[in-house]
Amino acid sequence: MKLKKIFFFALAMMAGQIAWGQNTIVEDFQSSTLNQPGQQYPQVNSQGYARFKIKAPKASSVRVSLGLGGSGGTLLTKGADGFFIGTTAGPMDEGFHYYHLSIDGGIFNDPGALNFYGSTRWESGIEIPAHDRDFYALKNVPHGNVQQILFPSKSTNSQRRAFVYTPPGYEKNTAKKYPVLYLQHGWGEDETAWSNQGHANLIMDNLIAEGNTIPFLIVMTYGMTNELKWGHMKDFKIDGFQKVLVDELIPYIDAHFRTVADRGHRAMAGLSMGGMETHAITLNNPDVFSYYALLSGGVYTPEELKGKTKPALIFISCGSREKPDGVKGAVAQLKKAGYNAVSYISQNTAHEFLTWRRSLHELAPMLFQNN
Amino acid sequence: MKLKKIFFFALAMMAGQIAWGQNTIVEDFQSSTLNQPGQQYPQVNSQGYARFKIKAPKASSVRVSLGLGGSGGTLLTKGADGFFIGTTAGPMDEGFHYYHLSIDGGIFNDPGALNFYGSTRWESGIEIPAHDRDFYALKNVPHGNVQQILFPSKSTNSQRRAFVYTPPGYEKNTAKKYPVLYLQHGWGEDETAWSNQGHANLIMDNLIAEGNTIPFLIVMTYGMTNELKWGHMKDFKIDGFQKVLVDELIPYIDAHFRTVADRGHRAMAGLSMGGMETHAITLNNPDVFSYYALLSGGVYTPEELKGKTKPALIFISCGSREKPDGVKGAVAQLKKAGYNAVSYISQNTAHEFLTWRRSLHELAPMLFQNN
Repeated sequence: MKLKKIFFFALAMMAGQIAWGQNTIVEDFQSSTLNQPGQQYPQVNSQGYARFKIKAPKASSVRVSLGLGGSGGTLLTKGADGFFIGTTAGPMDEGFHYYHLSIDGGIFNDPGALNFYGSTRWESGIEIPAHDRDFYALKNVPHGNVQQILFPSKSTNSQRRAFVYTPPGYEKNTAKKYPVLYLQHGWGEDETAWSNQGHANLIMDNLIAEGNTIPFLIVMTYGMTNELKWGHMKDFKIDGFQKVLVDELIPYIDAHFRTVADRGHRAMAGLSMGGMETHAITLNNPDVFSYYALLSGGVYTPEELKGKTKPALIFISCGSREKPDGVKGAVAQLKKAGYNAVSYISQNTAHEFLTWRRSLHELAPMLFQNN
Repeated sequence: MKLKKIFFFALAMMAGQIAWGQNTIVEDFQSSTLNQPGQQYPQVNSQGYARFKIKAPKASSVRVSLGLGGSGGTLLTKGADGFFIGTTAGPMDEGFHYYHLSIDGGIFNDPGALNFYGSTRWESGIEIPAHDRDFYALKNVPHGNVQQILFPSKSTNSQRRAFVYTPPGYEKNTAKKYPVLYLQHGWGEDETAWSNQGHANLIMDNLIAEGNTIPFLIVMTYGMTNELKWGHMKDFKIDGFQKVLVDELIPYIDAHFRTVADRGHRAMAGLSMGGMETHAITLNNPDVFSYYALLSGGVYTPEELKGKTKPALIFISCGSREKPDGVKGAVAQLKKAGYNAVSYISQNTAHEFLTWRRSLHELAPMLFQNN
C-alpha cells in the first residue's frame, strides 16, 4: 500500500512537471477576495488564472471582458447544468482588475463579484493576489476612519461628496493638527475609488502601525464637474474642478478638520486623469500645495516649473508595463534642474490599481518631511 | 393654424381623460433618482409606474423581479432595436425597492441602476418619489459625516466594519458629548443599508437643521456573526451578535467618540430582523440601553419587560400594509401597563425602506428627551 502511494505520488509529480512545462493550469483555484458574501465564483489560482462561472441556462453566449491583451476577453462554455464556465487564456497581472460580462449582446455585471466604479459605471472587480499584498491587508492594527462628508459647492450649485481618511488617534489627539494629501481618482472612476479598490486607508493604517509614515489626512473627491467622454481628454478644462477643489473643498476641510492649513502641509496626487489634474492644479497654484505626485499621469518638466515657488517634492510613478523610461527620464531632468524629484516603477503591472496602491505606499513616507 | 392647435389640444385632453379613467399610463417618465451616472433607465412616472429598458439583443427572455404582488414581476418585450422594454402592470408603492433581472434564466442586475445590499446580494434599486420625500432630501444645510470605522472583534477573530453618523458641529464642539443610537438593518442587508437606502444621515441633517431633534450619533454595524438562510429565522441565536455589539462595539465607540457613555444616553433600534435583535438585546441588557425601537420588527409585551429596569421609551412602528393593528394593540397594552410607548404607522407602505425612513424620522425627535 505504502509503495503504491509513493508510486502514484511520483507519477503525479512527474505529470505535474510535464504539465507545468506545457503551461497547464494548476487546479488550486480559490474564490476571489472581492466576491460578494457567500459567492464561490469568480476564482483565481496560484498562477494568476481567473475562472468564471455564470448561471444563464437559456443564454446563447457569455463572454467575460477580462483576458489577455487583445484577446477580446474570455468566452465561456455552456455546461449541461446551465452554467457557463471558462478560464482566462493565461495568467493575469497581480492586483485589481475591472471587468464585466457580455450576455447575449448586453453588458451586465458578474453576480458573484463586488462592484467598483470605473469606466463611468459600476463594474465587477476581481483581485489576483499580489506577492506583496501584505502592505494593503486588513490587519489587527489601529485603524483610521474613512469619513463621508457632504460639502456645499456654490460654483456647481450642489452638495458634493468627498471621503476623508483620518488616521488612528485623530479623535484623541485633539491638540494635534495634521497635514493633508488631496488624492484624485482616474477617468471614469469617482471619489470611492481610492478607498474601495485602492485600499488607501489600509495602506496608511499599516504604514503608521509600522512607524513608516507620519499620520496625515487624505481627502478624496470627485474630479469632474462636467461629463467628459473618453477620447475627448484634450477638450478637458481644469477650471471647473480647480474651483471646487481649491476654492471650496480645501477651505471646507480646513474649517472642519484639524489641519495645518498652509502650503508646506498640503500635497496633491492623482492617478491617470487625476495626475493630469494634479499637474495642472499644482502649476496653477504653486502656493497652495508643496508636494506633487503623478501616478501613471504624465510628468513635470523643469521649464513649466521655472519661476514658480519650488515644490518640496515631485513624485512620478507608473507600472513597468506603461512608460517607465519616460518617468525615469523626466525625473532625471528634474533632478538635474535642482528639484527634489523621485521616480517609482511598479514591477510587472500596467495602468491598473496595483500600480497605484504601490505608488501610494512609496509616496506616503516621503510626504511632509520638509516641515 | 391657431384654431387647429386648440382643437388638437382639446382632443388630446379628452383622450387623456378617457384614458385616465381606463388607468392609462401617463407618459411623464423620468429617470429614477437611483440610476448610475448618465443612465436614462429605469424610469418612473408621476403615477408610480416603473419602466425598464435593457439591452440584450440576442436574449430570449428578460424579466424584472419588480411588479405588483404575486404577478411574478414584469416581463419585458424585445424591440427591433435589441432593447427589451416594459412597464410595471400598475403603480408601485412610494419609496425604495430592491429588484433584479432574470435574463435567459440567470439573475443579473440592471446596468442602469445603482446597487444596494439586500437579500444577501447587491441588488438593483429604484426609487418611486414619495410625496413626503423632502424629509430625506439632500439639502443645502450643514451636513454630518458618515464615518467608516474598523473595530477589532476578539469574539469573531476579525476586524469588523461599522458606520458612525456624527452630526454637524461634532468636530467643532470638542467639549460636548453625545448620546448614541445603535441602528440595525434587516435580514439580507448589511451595515451599508441605513445610510445608502435609508438616508439616515440626511434624515438627521434635516431634522437638526429644522431644530426638530437634538444631535446624536448613529452607529450601524453588520448584525450577523454567522450565515443564516432565509426561512431559518427560528434557529437564530442572538449571542454572537450581542457579544460583538455590547462587549466590543459599544466600548470601542465610547473610547473613540465623544459619547455620554451611560444607559440614559443609549438607544437601540432595528428594522425587521434588526428589530428582532433589538428586542432580544435590550431585554437581555436593560442597563445598557434606555430607548428601544422596533421598526417592522415585532413588539414588546408588558410581561417580558416586567421586573427589568424600565425603558425611557418604547417605539414600535410598521407600514400600513403590514400589521398595523398588532403594533397599535401592543403599544396600547404597554401604555396600560405604565410604559412610555409610542406607535407609528407609515401610510401606504409595506415591509420596505420608506416605512423605515419615516420611522426614523418620527423616532429621532423622541430620543434622549428624558435626560
